[in-house]
Amino acid sequence: MSQEQRAHVDAMMRHPQPAEPPSVEELRAGFRALMSQMVVPAGIRTMETTLGARPALHVEPETGQRAGTILYFHGGAWVFGSPRTALCLTGQLVVRTGFPAYSVDYRLAPEHPFPAAIDDTLDAYRALLDSGADPAAVVFAGDSAGGGLAVTTCLAARDAGLPLPAAIVAFSPGLDATRSGESMTTKEDLDPIFTRRAMEHTGAMYLAGADPHQPLLSPAVFADLTGFPPLLIQVGTNEILLDDSTRLAARAREAGVDVILDVTADVPHVFQALTGVLDEAEEALDRAALFVAQRIRAPRPAGTAAGCR
Amino acid sequence: MSQEQRAHVDAMMRHPQPAEPPSVEELRAGFRALMSQMVVPAGIRTMETTLGARPALHVEPETGQRAGTILYFHGGAWVFGSPRTALCLTGQLVVRTGFPAYSVDYRLAPEHPFPAAIDDTLDAYRALLDSGADPAAVVFAGDSAGGGLAVTTCLAARDAGLPLPAAIVAFSPGLDATRSGESMTTKEDLDPIFTRRAMEHTGAMYLAGADPHQPLLSPAVFADLTGFPPLLIQVGTNEILLDDSTRLAARAREAGVDVILDVTADVPHVFQALTGVLDEAEEALDRAALFVAQRIRAPRPAGTAAGCR
Repeated sequence: MSQEQRAHVDAMMRHPQPAEPPSVEELRAGFRALMSQMVVPAGIRTMETTLGARPALHVEPETGQRAGTILYFHGGAWVFGSPRTALCLTGQLVVRTGFPAYSVDYRLAPEHPFPAAIDDTLDAYRALLDSGADPAAVVFAGDSAGGGLAVTTCLAARDAGLPLPAAIVAFSPGLDATRSGESMTTKEDLDPIFTRRAMEHTGAMYLAGADPHQPLLSPAVFADLTGFPPLLIQVGTNEILLDDSTRLAARAREAGVDVILDVTADVPHVFQALTGVLDEAEEALDRAALFVAQRIRAPRPAGTAAGCR
Repeated sequence: MSQEQRAHVDAMMRHPQPAEPPSVEELRAGFRALMSQMVVPAGIRTMETTLGARPALHVEPETGQRAGTILYFHGGAWVFGSPRTALCLTGQLVVRTGFPAYSVDYRLAPEHPFPAAIDDTLDAYRALLDSGADPAAVVFAGDSAGGGLAVTTCLAARDAGLPLPAAIVAFSPGLDATRSGESMTTKEDLDPIFTRRAMEHTGAMYLAGADPHQPLLSPAVFADLTGFPPLLIQVGTNEILLDDSTRLAARAREAGVDVILDVTADVPHVFQALTGVLDEAEEALDRAALFVAQRIRAPRPAGTAAGCR
């Protein structure tokens, strides 16, 4: 349907790799500039607040708000990004579902390496529960590194004995600090955004010497997902991170977890940010919105249809 | 959410296996009796008709009909079943999408072994196109053996040089006559419906000596899916057929095909038939309906949301 759109997006995202690795400040500024081109949807209100010990951005629909919460974790390789850079995605989930979101401004590497980010996101979830939120009406969502945090925060919550959220939505999640997926090699020429070298550069900042062979750093390889809530993973085939998703989905199936592995061909990392450019972005967001709405809702009598026409 | 419902369904579906394989007539009568317990939704009109050389059941919504066609292939191991036994599923897709369906009464084994069924379903698709249907507004859908036919009819259509449909929806498809999936063994105790022995009994009727090592009989193992339309596969984890789905999804990803592998834990084969008993059935049907609606529609301007609230 949109092979031309997909090719256009590839050309748009493909940039020459610099000879020298950029500085942390260059990475952060470059990512802000990239994400500022993405469309933030109309129909939302935002407010700076705090959740736990960290700043957070509260995002709510201007109309039609429903009871429930999306706890959102932005992308940016654990080194860059903020709730503002992910607002195109968080806002889309909010307007398409009616649920408000908190987007957590977790601490970043290299200043704050692993496990600072997970400490902060778990702390944010705990604060949300302490404020009276029903975990059955909370969904974790995130993109890229934040998709990884959606999974690892749930692992950490389980290990801490907290009640788990109703579901997890992960857009192109980063789930393997060992970088052992086949797609790391087979997709290297196709991926317009990432190279193994660039990923190892920021990855080393987040690890800061920690052993990547552990569930909180490489859940696609080491996590036992037993007891996890339903999981929606969306990923493109033009990603070196593709097999982070396929392997996590296989682990979820083996652990008896409901899991939807939603793969769009010929699109890059976190293509859902490209609304207005790529029909597949809107369609994927609509599927994510239906998934969230199915998982956060008042119990309905058997035999009545939720409907989606 | 519904662990109790899932356990109830398991007990409902689990029957002692007969010591002797049942006769073909017993199989057909038993399946009619089983499927007659499933709920056919209100809000549809049915009409006996023909499509190509075969009878077909036309199913349309009483209200809100939209332009497009679901070409449905019923389940029943290629030996039993009919458009009537699958009406609970076909009807649900019709009422949840607004698209009318033709459900094809293809010939059955052992009287008519492979490739009679595919000859008939391909003939039905050709007749639909000859009647003026736009292939971009046709979706193939089916359950079990019919989910297999949704895939193999698309293979046959491609090989015949026909334009391909807009999408394929397969509920617990049977996609491997070699029965080489790991789940054939690992899920044998969990599957409340199938045993390898029962499957080999009916499988031999369909094969009638044909070599199962070919794409039209074992697409999960041998089919090249290049050029296929987007694919939605829904399957339960309590199925010996689970890996038919996981392997087809992997082949689709490798071939650059959009593919959603939608796995529900702890539910049996074609659990979507259990509306009114199992919330997961309704939820899976709603996801299938959204997928169909996304694939059959007039082009919409970039930036407008399809919405699903």
